[in-house]
Amino acid sequence: MEFDHAGLATDDADALAELYTDLLDAPIVHRETFDGMSVVFLDCGNGYFELLEPLDDDSAIAKYLDRNGPGIHHLALETDNVVAALDRAREHDVELIDDEPRPGAWGHSVAFLHPGSTGGVLIEFVEH
Amino acid sequence: MEFDHAGLATDDADALAELYTDLLDAPIVHRETFDGMSVVFLDCGNGYFELLEPLDDDSAIAKYLDRNGPGIHHLALETDNVVAALDRAREHDVELIDDEPRPGAWGHSVAFLHPGSTGGVLIEFVEH
Repeated sequence: MEFDHAGLATDDADALAELYTDLLDAPIVHRETFDGMSVVFLDCGNGYFELLEPLDDDSAIAKYLDRNGPGIHHLALETDNVVAALDRAREHDVELIDDEPRPGAWGHSVAFLHPGSTGGVLIEFVEH
Repeated sequence: MEFDHAGLATDDADALAELYTDLLDAPIVHRETFDGMSVVFLDCGNGYFELLEPLDDDSAIAKYLDRNGPGIHHLALETDNVVAALDRAREHDVELIDDEPRPGAWGHSVAFLHPGSTGGVLIEFVEH
């Protein structure tokens, strides 16, 4: 299952995108407002950085920033079948945040696993 | 600059490797003891997970685990010239943890940037 993106929680997606674009040769390839967040995707060639800035104090990412400050929020792995990937997670007794795929940013189908079951890492399955 | 690996801090690299190998189709491709850590690399096709388990209570990763618990520790980007990448970071007034490349795990040449300058993300440049 290949690396798709790293989701980064930030208070200022535009400023971080400007820095990373040059520092990491990662141009902006997509922007949208999604689920109470300003979302910016940067292309690193074999995957993406997904910058997540809260627009709403009640959004999950706003609460994450309050608790943890800015930084790496999750890792996303690409699969051609999120349903099958979730079934495999269930076989390993991994706790699921999403029991079934749901719409994610950029029109993708996504599901998250609970970090308590995966070594503290918030893992997202993503199907393009 | 392409994604190279995500470094994950863990109390039990073997157990996490066993889970990820099947859950994420990411086989073990390298193991070593490095800098007071047990290090396991899993191959996700277009990059790696680097599992970092402390063997020494004074290691940086032991202190990280004490403070933060297990989870995503850093993101590494591959470059063919760490020295040039560090020069570019200096141009952006990014604070460096390593002023010059140093030997990293798996025989790579590496340098880390200070997360206080990069949106809370501990970024590693790695040259194979």
